[in-house]
Amino acid sequence: MGYSFPDGTNISPELERHIRQLHAVVGNAVTEGRFIVFGAGSTQLLNAAVHALSPDVPSTSSTVVATAPFYPIYELQTEYFASVDFQYQGDTSLWIAGGNSSKTIIEFVTSPNNPDGKLNEAVLKGPNFKAIYDRAYYWPHFTPIPAADDGELKIFTLSKLTGHAGSRFGWAIVKDEDVYNKMLMHMQLNTMGVSRDTQLRALKLLKTIMAEGGGRTIFDFGYQTMKSRWEKLRKVVSVSKRFSLQDVSSHYCVFSGRVRESSPAYGWLKCEREEESDCYGVLKAAGIIGRGGSVFYATDRNVRLSLIKTRDDFDLLVDKLQKLVSAEQDEEEGGGDGNGIEQHVANVTEYQPLRRRM
Amino acid sequence: MGYSFPDGTNISPELERHIRQLHAVVGNAVTEGRFIVFGAGSTQLLNAAVHALSPDVPSTSSTVVATAPFYPIYELQTEYFASVDFQYQGDTSLWIAGGNSSKTIIEFVTSPNNPDGKLNEAVLKGPNFKAIYDRAYYWPHFTPIPAADDGELKIFTLSKLTGHAGSRFGWAIVKDEDVYNKMLMHMQLNTMGVSRDTQLRALKLLKTIMAEGGGRTIFDFGYQTMKSRWEKLRKVVSVSKRFSLQDVSSHYCVFSGRVRESSPAYGWLKCEREEESDCYGVLKAAGIIGRGGSVFYATDRNVRLSLIKTRDDFDLLVDKLQKLVSAEQDEEEGGGDGNGIEQHVANVTEYQPLRRRM
Repeated sequence: MGYSFPDGTNISPELERHIRQLHAVVGNAVTEGRFIVFGAGSTQLLNAAVHALSPDVPSTSSTVVATAPFYPIYELQTEYFASVDFQYQGDTSLWIAGGNSSKTIIEFVTSPNNPDGKLNEAVLKGPNFKAIYDRAYYWPHFTPIPAADDGELKIFTLSKLTGHAGSRFGWAIVKDEDVYNKMLMHMQLNTMGVSRDTQLRALKLLKTIMAEGGGRTIFDFGYQTMKSRWEKLRKVVSVSKRFSLQDVSSHYCVFSGRVRESSPAYGWLKCEREEESDCYGVLKAAGIIGRGGSVFYATDRNVRLSLIKTRDDFDLLVDKLQKLVSAEQDEEEGGGDGNGIEQHVANVTEYQPLRRRM
Repeated sequence: MGYSFPDGTNISPELERHIRQLHAVVGNAVTEGRFIVFGAGSTQLLNAAVHALSPDVPSTSSTVVATAPFYPIYELQTEYFASVDFQYQGDTSLWIAGGNSSKTIIEFVTSPNNPDGKLNEAVLKGPNFKAIYDRAYYWPHFTPIPAADDGELKIFTLSKLTGHAGSRFGWAIVKDEDVYNKMLMHMQLNTMGVSRDTQLRALKLLKTIMAEGGGRTIFDFGYQTMKSRWEKLRKVVSVSKRFSLQDVSSHYCVFSGRVRESSPAYGWLKCEREEESDCYGVLKAAGIIGRGGSVFYATDRNVRLSLIKTRDDFDLLVDKLQKLVSAEQDEEEGGGDGNGIEQHVANVTEYQPLRRRM
């Protein structure tokens, strides 16, 4: 197995065709007249996009921003690769007034957002602002699809579509040919494209998706599963004054043809008691390991709880939360002191990203 | 399939164990007490190594060098990623006198070399000099193995071992734990490790290799094949005054237990006639597409001819060269003017790397 497909590229035309078909069925992205580039998950594509959108002139390095709470890899990756062409420079809000600057400002927009599931839009608008839309969660199991993304640069991944995070496959849909060529160059010099074994796996998965219900079955299943999990989680928290969850919005969904409520991949839980500012610690003491808010450049009053674990892990999460909330009810009724809470280490583990350069 | 193996890393312990076994059989690398990190082919590992060996202090960026002729990706990749931590600064020879500098100088050493097959050693020696040994071709089909590489950082790839270049799998063997941790961090932030599908494919291939003759069969086959091709190529060129090939050396080989001559992956052909300084053009006119010397920062008086194509492609190469040399003989005997040479476009194609930023 050599480096190239018969057309000389590293990109399987058959897989690209299936990706375009899938988007046509779901209605979540405009692909006509657009270029598609493959990457090792969205991770590789995010940095390729920053490179491609940054000016080539060394004296005019671009600024990279995101709005908290946000997925930490945007900052970690941009800082780590430490190119002379771009720098990470904190929260988007600092740059809203900078519209007259000639500097290129690149904004990461995750929509639906990780961690809180919000359908974010780019905050910065103007000729020098460029948005990278991270659309990992823009599938009908997590959110209604209000419209096909028609933007300049959007990134999708197999990871949150079929759950094959370990295959490391993602794709970017790009409007501008020059940006596309720069991203191709990045992939070539970084890894000589995406593993052809991975592309074969992705093709098999997409073929299976398309064969079942014309591409609709997986999303009907996924939506029912996520909706049911989200409702269970919300029901437990709804009777609590100690904890709260983010609000979710409803929108008309072009895929399902009706108004639907979001069913996000993560609960963005908040500890409401003044003294419980370390919400991660509060939950950990109850055997629940989430991911603390500070990981996402928010405060540790929030914790991200994953709803996309195995069913056993999810059920365990709900049980443990239920116990916490029951103890709270008992306290309010004067009947308990909270000692009934089991203080054991959870077997629910969460991947913790590397936080800083070693 | 999630992100991690049960131990929390992205690296299959079973695959790592097979890699160590293979090196033990071949005798080409010391792995005891060393760390192994996986990458998407050697391509990703080369840049990870440059990052890991560069100082973290921004004011003391490192210098990256190689000795011509060399594999072009070293320069292209280092320039493209344009980190504040390192710069590509030309040929090694310029830095030999720089031993007293406090600057870190990182030297790429390809051994056997691509394009000319020489068993290169690091040129720069001293406390501030660090070598990255690219060992893609350090297998018994291409070279005798004089000794196990006992160096600080050496990189291997499946691509020139089994021919699965498209799988994008390589590994680095690292002595220093801090360098290893930095390379792991690089893989995490760049691609979240190597595709688990690719790791599974690599494991299957190494298991197959180990099952056949205890790991010896593939190398006996590979050596016979390469030796036979090399001899055919050399025989054709040996009667020519117009063309010459690089000399190859003989060494005692720890794998085969006897003295062997190299059988390189590439012929580094030279056009000897004063007026034929564009050797690539001379060969192209005869239907042979090699890769011009300037790609490797040498002159275009040399051309790299690949001996690791399919058998049909190789036979075609030898036929076309034979015609060129026969025409030369005819000319010398006064019997021809060279018009008998077929001037058609070859169906032997060579992958041409992207030369410059777009």
